[in-house]
Amino acid sequence: MAQTLHIPVDRRNPVPLARQIQAHLERLIQERRLAPGVKLPATRELARELGVNRATVTLAYDELVAAGRARAHVGQGTFVEGPLTATAVPVPARAAAAAGESVAVDWSGVLSRAAHIIAGDAARKRPPALPARPPQGLISFAGGMPDSGMFPTDAFRRALNAVIREEGQELLQYYPVGGYPPLRRFLSSYLLRAGVEARPEEILIVNGSQQGFDLIARTLLDPGDAVAIEQPTYPRAMQVFRSFGARLVPVPLGDDGPRVDVLERVLERHAPKLFYCQPTAHNPTGLTMSAEARRRLLEVCARRPVAIVEDAFDGGLHYGPRPPAPLKALDRAGRVVYIGTFSKILFPGLRLGWVVAPRVVLERLEAAKQLADIQTSALIQAAVYHFCERRLLERHLGRIAAEYGRRQRRLLESLAQRMPRDVRWTETRGGFSLLLTLPDGLDAGALLPRAVARGVSFTPGPAFFADQGGDETLRLSFSSVPGSRIDEGVRRLADVIREARRRPRERVESERAAVPLV
Amino acid sequence: MAQTLHIPVDRRNPVPLARQIQAHLERLIQERRLAPGVKLPATRELARELGVNRATVTLAYDELVAAGRARAHVGQGTFVEGPLTATAVPVPARAAAAAGESVAVDWSGVLSRAAHIIAGDAARKRPPALPARPPQGLISFAGGMPDSGMFPTDAFRRALNAVIREEGQELLQYYPVGGYPPLRRFLSSYLLRAGVEARPEEILIVNGSQQGFDLIARTLLDPGDAVAIEQPTYPRAMQVFRSFGARLVPVPLGDDGPRVDVLERVLERHAPKLFYCQPTAHNPTGLTMSAEARRRLLEVCARRPVAIVEDAFDGGLHYGPRPPAPLKALDRAGRVVYIGTFSKILFPGLRLGWVVAPRVVLERLEAAKQLADIQTSALIQAAVYHFCERRLLERHLGRIAAEYGRRQRRLLESLAQRMPRDVRWTETRGGFSLLLTLPDGLDAGALLPRAVARGVSFTPGPAFFADQGGDETLRLSFSSVPGSRIDEGVRRLADVIREARRRPRERVESERAAVPLV
Repeated sequence: MAQTLHIPVDRRNPVPLARQIQAHLERLIQERRLAPGVKLPATRELARELGVNRATVTLAYDELVAAGRARAHVGQGTFVEGPLTATAVPVPARAAAAAGESVAVDWSGVLSRAAHIIAGDAARKRPPALPARPPQGLISFAGGMPDSGMFPTDAFRRALNAVIREEGQELLQYYPVGGYPPLRRFLSSYLLRAGVEARPEEILIVNGSQQGFDLIARTLLDPGDAVAIEQPTYPRAMQVFRSFGARLVPVPLGDDGPRVDVLERVLERHAPKLFYCQPTAHNPTGLTMSAEARRRLLEVCARRPVAIVEDAFDGGLHYGPRPPAPLKALDRAGRVVYIGTFSKILFPGLRLGWVVAPRVVLERLEAAKQLADIQTSALIQAAVYHFCERRLLERHLGRIAAEYGRRQRRLLESLAQRMPRDVRWTETRGGFSLLLTLPDGLDAGALLPRAVARGVSFTPGPAFFADQGGDETLRLSFSSVPGSRIDEGVRRLADVIREARRRPRERVESERAAVPLV
Repeated sequence: MAQTLHIPVDRRNPVPLARQIQAHLERLIQERRLAPGVKLPATRELARELGVNRATVTLAYDELVAAGRARAHVGQGTFVEGPLTATAVPVPARAAAAAGESVAVDWSGVLSRAAHIIAGDAARKRPPALPARPPQGLISFAGGMPDSGMFPTDAFRRALNAVIREEGQELLQYYPVGGYPPLRRFLSSYLLRAGVEARPEEILIVNGSQQGFDLIARTLLDPGDAVAIEQPTYPRAMQVFRSFGARLVPVPLGDDGPRVDVLERVLERHAPKLFYCQPTAHNPTGLTMSAEARRRLLEVCARRPVAIVEDAFDGGLHYGPRPPAPLKALDRAGRVVYIGTFSKILFPGLRLGWVVAPRVVLERLEAAKQLADIQTSALIQAAVYHFCERRLLERHLGRIAAEYGRRQRRLLESLAQRMPRDVRWTETRGGFSLLLTLPDGLDAGALLPRAVARGVSFTPGPAFFADQGGDETLRLSFSSVPGSRIDEGVRRLADVIREARRRPRERVESERAAVPLV
């Protein structure tokens, strides 16, 4: 690591060297590129570095101290004090002497179609205006993440220690793209318990399910291709497919999964390359398809060359009877690509998930993964394997499933008790959330600022809809709300809805806030 | 986690339930989907799960044991024994009864253009045939990775422990895409020492430089766009650009960086969206451009709306005098996008790097990153920050730079001493490698199997060339070869070259091996 600053000094410049050094440092401090408290390089080092006399550097530092930009501590060195506040201070012009002025790049003219699509999507689904600071005591049903209060952080720390001690050198070196072999083998048995038969070499380790979507999109989609999706569905999956130029064709959810009659027509008319679905603990609705509906879905797809991308919420986070086997377990034609993740059952921050696919597809996904980021951290993979192998995942899952199940039941009970008659919601069976439909004429986006003002928040529905729909829906996530706060949150929301029905459609203008959308 | 196996039992099927269960398990064992040693679910659990009598499961298990497929340990349970070896054993047909047969998906008809490009690239640049098992004592100049023998593994383990203890809950939850703020601030000062002025919000944390290439490609490139590259250059960067449909236009390296006269013509004729280069410790050549050449390069680009993607090998791994400031430090127009990584200076396996770009571009890269994999592990980021903040990176860099410098000098000395007169090589200044050019008529790919047979290996040059060139070149990486083995490796290589010149062009046919290409 370089020990000093790189300061351009120009001996042909009539400005004395000390003054050049001082001016450069002043600008860095003024622009906060050198932050207050940072120690400047020792004069001896900087002088050697710049090829100047040490006295020259000392002089420059003295001037900085005199100007109040730095402070000298005897025996310790010189430290940045901070920029002067007034704009009146003449800031040295940004080294215009150097390199000759050049034409600025017009970045907007250089952006790819994908970049434009991504930006357009972000603008269209912008979360509604919210106060910049949520009121104290806000009960948030907005974030679809696991409750970090239940994280088995310390057990995982020990797992990390164990694997670094045992095989740190290998894990921290480059590693084969497919994944850490013991983790692939573990997943192979783990999946088998749900009926999914996948050999280790049919499993690719990825950075969470999000990278799974991304690799599938690059491997299968060309601009203009159709992709059939359930509606509503997970926003970031839609965004990825769209960013690769796909046209999204929605298939509405019916009483028991996506409507197969619509799907059949979509397959016929649009010949989509893939159908993306979440048969178990669907996000945002929390619904789970019956075994019968799964069979019908596969039958409809059997007659077409369409791939099914099955995004699987772990069956362990299903709070009623055990969910039916995944589509992948019933898939005889090898048309299902199955995506799983540790984000919900363990830690989102690990960025660890997996894709199961026929070997012929998996090879392509591996090649794409290698270009995307070479590999997923083997250290993280090994630690998770170590954690799982000791049955700690099993124990953790038992604990969190019990708690999430309680929260889910409490939410359903509170809704039944407190909501106006014409409010409806999905009978969530698993996962983290449900979708609520407001009475006629109410708009979830417009409602949100009022709700936040009353101390409750949620995610407005439109983000989950590919087309313009969903205005009257909102997602309630129960995973991060302590059980004791759920009823109060529902009470507040019910009040807001009742009140809004009396005074409909008035938009509250305020700053936009970022509601995490997961 | 499900505690049991998902076994389809069909009560309408005339086959007894116990036999159905047994047949299913037999198939799983035969296909090695249930591995030897795996414990079968307790009979009570499996019976409850399947909704059958416990005696039914016990009967099925007994049959498995009788058939030698499983073994019962009293008080412990029943364990898989293994598949029978002979093909004579009738394997139950794969549940054809289920779900009705469907048309297999023709995956090759579903693949994207990108997938075809990736596969084509892989096939074209296939490493030459090598014996499956390298001979004992092979001296490998092939892999461009740091020497894991010098990894500061234990210090990093302690850093991980500290950050999990202090802020594990936050680090393991979802995290903002831009990166761990203290790491971004650290990089801001770290880069400043090399003259690069980047505010923390102009720095995006990514999964190694590879993801940097990928995000830049998606953000800037459409199919058909031209990308100018140095030739030779880093293969995976070329592959990424090509996978997004770009046309690569090579600019040959001259005595001091890419030939600006050629670059100028390329900019005029092809109007590339970006120019990818490695001004410092270039891979594969190890060359470093002079300050003067850097200025000329920027001048030539200043007249065109072209972005420069600067792939920066850390200046700390430069073994002569300090390298000139990066292009990014001289960039007044905001046209340089700068990519750095911890892979060479710390651990490749972390997958941790950064991209510096004007905020207007960085926002787009962030949006693309969010769709690619939501974020880079905050845990890893925090641990690396903790490591760096305690000046451990500085200390580590000092140690490894001294050692790599010794290896580099030894390689250059050995080459000078042992190679035939008409062998040439680049005067590497930093990084991990150099490029060697064979005497007329010799082909590096053809030479490799002979070299390996003699106990020395390298990476043939064509992988580093966009067009068909480079056949007569090869890369020698010194980073992972112990200093004491370098001279012997060069001696062997020189012998192989001398011998090949006597008997040129005879191809050795053998199995293909995977030479890691980094």
